[in-house]
Amino acid sequence: MAKGPAASTVPISDARRRIMKIAAELFSRKGYGSVGTNEIGEATGYGKGALYYYIRSKGDLLHDIMTIYLRDLIHEARQIVAQNDGVKERVMLLSESLMRAVVEDNAEMTVCLREVHALEEDQRDRVLALHGAYLQIWRQVMEDAHVTGDFRPLDADELKGLLGMYFYSFLWLSSDRAKDVPDLARKFAGIVLRSCHA
Amino acid sequence: MAKGPAASTVPISDARRRIMKIAAELFSRKGYGSVGTNEIGEATGYGKGALYYYIRSKGDLLHDIMTIYLRDLIHEARQIVAQNDGVKERVMLLSESLMRAVVEDNAEMTVCLREVHALEEDQRDRVLALHGAYLQIWRQVMEDAHVTGDFRPLDADELKGLLGMYFYSFLWLSSDRAKDVPDLARKFAGIVLRSCHA
Repeated sequence: MAKGPAASTVPISDARRRIMKIAAELFSRKGYGSVGTNEIGEATGYGKGALYYYIRSKGDLLHDIMTIYLRDLIHEARQIVAQNDGVKERVMLLSESLMRAVVEDNAEMTVCLREVHALEEDQRDRVLALHGAYLQIWRQVMEDAHVTGDFRPLDADELKGLLGMYFYSFLWLSSDRAKDVPDLARKFAGIVLRSCHA
Repeated sequence: MAKGPAASTVPISDARRRIMKIAAELFSRKGYGSVGTNEIGEATGYGKGALYYYIRSKGDLLHDIMTIYLRDLIHEARQIVAQNDGVKERVMLLSESLMRAVVEDNAEMTVCLREVHALEEDQRDRVLALHGAYLQIWRQVMEDAHVTGDFRPLDADELKGLLGMYFYSFLWLSSDRAKDVPDLARKFAGIVLRSCHA
């Protein structure tokens, strides 16, 4: 498969990752627009001054949270596709990878999926390109499965619909369902496989 | 079917509905937390003072936008179920009703689905009850279809997943797809029917 944008993961300091986690939790709970930099400074214990040593602005922090989680998802999804040929295995493993992100990193995924509108235009374009790169991995899986005769042809709306099933689940799933991830992944993969079957 | 909460639609003045439409567009584009009452006053042409004649607060305006659109959806969905027996017709018509709301009232639906976290707790409970009432209509359709042998048994996670497919689509669909509503509804209904088939 062609290598799309931003496949690699970027190393981040522990302090920066901790700030991103706390900020993601605040953005997720209260909405990005309702959280001030002061509040992030207080919640992280850095205060506003020291916080700016690690982040450039609240907008950049939002962009970084989205970028890193989408890059991680893309990286994992590409590995799954490279290492597995069968459509059932691919869909099952992609389903589990995405569901695990939604459940275990619920605050970060909520921000990734809900706050795109809050980004500056050029940053939004970059984040939407990552969304597109992730979608493209699933599209390739569907197309490969059509070539082998396992799947019916699927159009762009149907693919986005099926992925929306996962993406929307950030709203009703949280970390208290962590032990159910394999079950949830199997149920959603079942819907994908049944609805795409040739 | 038992009559759940808030089935009826409440009459609203034209001025109030117009304010809700403009506010929904602002909340949808910029995020609820990033829009001030001043801005709503300017955009509607009332100014802040006269605006308060029609709305009690920004929070109440958000609550009213969510409530009215969910009530309309519930009202329409209950009529569809009452007037149609076959599972294919029910799923097709529910699919079209929901898809039409997502596409034609995209700003309002975006607010309904994305800004629940911004509500005060008691208002959030009422809005979540309406979400639940809407979900219950689809659940009844799935259960009826299981009784007739058309559908396999479906659990709560699967049902929420399938509806998430529609709900998430507010992010990638907008009013420029208005002419595609019947097509989009048919594609999504096809996914529901295929994935639930006994």
